[in-house]
Amino acid sequence: MKISKTGVVLAGVIILLTAAVVGLLIYINNQPPPTRGVEPLVEIAEMEPDSSKWGVNFPNQYSTLLLTETNNERTAYGGSNPFSRLENNPRLLTLFAGYSFSKDYNEERGHLNSLTDVRATGRVNETTPGTCYSCKTAANPQLWSEMGMAEYDKTPFSELGELIEHPIGCANCHEANTMRLIVTNPALEEALEAQGRNWRTFTRQEMRTVVCANCHVEYYFAGEGKYLTFPWADGTDIESISAYYAELQFKDWDHPQSGAPMIKMQHPEYEVFTANSTHYNAGVACADCHMPYTRDGAAKFSTHNVKSPLLNAATACGACHTDVEYVTNRVSIIQNQVNEIMAAAEEAIIAAIKAIEAAAASQGADATLLEEARQLHREAQLRWDFISAENSMGFHNPEEALRILASATDLARQAQLKAVLAGDGSGGGATSGN
Amino acid sequence: MKISKTGVVLAGVIILLTAAVVGLLIYINNQPPPTRGVEPLVEIAEMEPDSSKWGVNFPNQYSTLLLTETNNERTAYGGSNPFSRLENNPRLLTLFAGYSFSKDYNEERGHLNSLTDVRATGRVNETTPGTCYSCKTAANPQLWSEMGMAEYDKTPFSELGELIEHPIGCANCHEANTMRLIVTNPALEEALEAQGRNWRTFTRQEMRTVVCANCHVEYYFAGEGKYLTFPWADGTDIESISAYYAELQFKDWDHPQSGAPMIKMQHPEYEVFTANSTHYNAGVACADCHMPYTRDGAAKFSTHNVKSPLLNAATACGACHTDVEYVTNRVSIIQNQVNEIMAAAEEAIIAAIKAIEAAAASQGADATLLEEARQLHREAQLRWDFISAENSMGFHNPEEALRILASATDLARQAQLKAVLAGDGSGGGATSGN
Repeated sequence: MKISKTGVVLAGVIILLTAAVVGLLIYINNQPPPTRGVEPLVEIAEMEPDSSKWGVNFPNQYSTLLLTETNNERTAYGGSNPFSRLENNPRLLTLFAGYSFSKDYNEERGHLNSLTDVRATGRVNETTPGTCYSCKTAANPQLWSEMGMAEYDKTPFSELGELIEHPIGCANCHEANTMRLIVTNPALEEALEAQGRNWRTFTRQEMRTVVCANCHVEYYFAGEGKYLTFPWADGTDIESISAYYAELQFKDWDHPQSGAPMIKMQHPEYEVFTANSTHYNAGVACADCHMPYTRDGAAKFSTHNVKSPLLNAATACGACHTDVEYVTNRVSIIQNQVNEIMAAAEEAIIAAIKAIEAAAASQGADATLLEEARQLHREAQLRWDFISAENSMGFHNPEEALRILASATDLARQAQLKAVLAGDGSGGGATSGN
Repeated sequence: MKISKTGVVLAGVIILLTAAVVGLLIYINNQPPPTRGVEPLVEIAEMEPDSSKWGVNFPNQYSTLLLTETNNERTAYGGSNPFSRLENNPRLLTLFAGYSFSKDYNEERGHLNSLTDVRATGRVNETTPGTCYSCKTAANPQLWSEMGMAEYDKTPFSELGELIEHPIGCANCHEANTMRLIVTNPALEEALEAQGRNWRTFTRQEMRTVVCANCHVEYYFAGEGKYLTFPWADGTDIESISAYYAELQFKDWDHPQSGAPMIKMQHPEYEVFTANSTHYNAGVACADCHMPYTRDGAAKFSTHNVKSPLLNAATACGACHTDVEYVTNRVSIIQNQVNEIMAAAEEAIIAAIKAIEAAAASQGADATLLEEARQLHREAQLRWDFISAENSMGFHNPEEALRILASATDLARQAQLKAVLAGDGSGGGATSGN
């Protein structure tokens, strides 16, 4: 067959054109979807407490935030259902005896219930300071700015409440209009500064963890003014926090049975997660699992329906893990292990409390040994509570949780022994060792 | 321009031919390299004890096996350097007092040293049974076949040794010529059968873990005949193994200070790894990390230079994990946590030993409480040793290791308390609680 020059040229042209068409199709297909809302619809006032106003510009974020109000799902050990932790585990009644947490201690609900729930809790009374609103409302950035945190904290809870009408919302983590993630809680800013850290230098991915530390941390109320303070000056691990409180001789209450000066730990999710957990060290942020990227048509956004990743595993875990069933099963195995060791720690602490109570009631108890036993009770219980109050049944950092619980049990059993040695040696009610 | 019919046909033909050429090149490029050695060079005798004969057919596997003789590298907590564990951690002298492991307890070397090292250990004497050769030589499959395991086990170590000249080798895990992975140790076969499991139905990937259980397990010598037995009838978790030994009232020795009937645990790598560890549950086999696939030119083979993956991390961890530095750092963090809690468990057990010793020496000690204290000492120490003797400083299953160590500490402190209660109440030498 004779091939004409025209034919060759023709073939070349066809091949080139075909390649060009394919290349262009690939290019077009790889373009991001058209962005929406680059120009905000409305201007948001600085530190605007009303999230619905921000919602005009960010309907996806706002509408998912609204979902946190009605979510009521329970997971194996947590979730958003406000079940009574006291009914769920009556050991807490002994452990928190004499303190408000033995009266009312419910699993927390979603962000939008923060205001309703703090006002309804049995832990609030006429002496409650304004500090207790610190994590409950999007009005805080504005109030802190206007009043200063010292004034805010010393204002009575009931009085401060009259200035507050919105639950947790946009202003707690975002700068208006730029939507930049920011630290809004002065206590967090001060705690970071004390460590020589400046959040303004943090990457966006770091901020997707740090903004959660506006609230999800251990804190205490310092001095008469009930000044909100994070006990981080020596570090954020439990040994450093324990040393910090010891140096300060701080206590939340005295245990009525053991007489020990006690510390109640609050939800130290940030401290536990960042203590070399595998996810944190791998660069994963809180928001990656609790606010995973979600699609609304062609738009991708972080869901603001913040909740347990177990209630959203396909999206939350599936973003990185190909086998979601495998990883959720893994969570279950780990949480069961931590729960077992947590219960053992509780048994040990209760045995210590009973032994100290019995020894103190006995004739001629050794005061020095009794005091040592009380200190050991305090140290054991604050370690246990660091993991018990932390909302993940250890999953945020399984090895660290088990390490701390093992140490809590060890200290509690030593407290029990000291108490027996302090008393008449009969062990009082503690002869069973349990 | 006019396009002739010929031109169109021509263009079509050229496009089709180009596509065909590209397709064929892709196909060819995706073909595996030519296999080598499909036809064996020599026939291997059934259960041949001499690995060098198998090596003719499998030079890569054999030459890497030879490397296990001279490897002498130490990792943070293990490796192939035969350092003295007693010098490294003098607490072991108290924990194993009265038993051979307080005389000689070195970190193990590579497979090819098995025979040299078992003959050199201070733990062997004139009463040592043949059972102690069970994991030390490739002669075993042949000897077990010829003598039967019962006869093998009751033959004195020194006498049996005359029949043995080769260390661990090919015949311990492979069927000659087919090279199929097989269970060769009758004790393993019997232990699996007792659980209703038949290894002949296992997948190859399962066998790449199970063949390691020929040796890397907890075992004991049953009865006068020192019959090699795995304590797995109730399960392979520590609670089941403990219950099995309790039912049997088995003991390896009596602790001279506490008087407790003790169990020495041996390297239960298989039991710990398979107890819901994340790697095991994800389908990873022992061989994946300890004998990772390696290349010799175009040939891919499992290295038989079995050693700590930390000494070969790029290949061992890198096969699955993209960031080897991250994962080896993770191992380090976990092992440090486990080491800390292991040391705490040791301190607690030693405190129990001292308290029991003091109580037993006191006037009118309560015999019932003393006996309970001794049982608690036994239970605490066998749990601790299950993790201490396991070669991974907890990494094979971090949460399980920490769970067991927490429990060991709890039981040890309860033993200590019982002892104090059994004695005169002064606590003897145990007043410090440590």
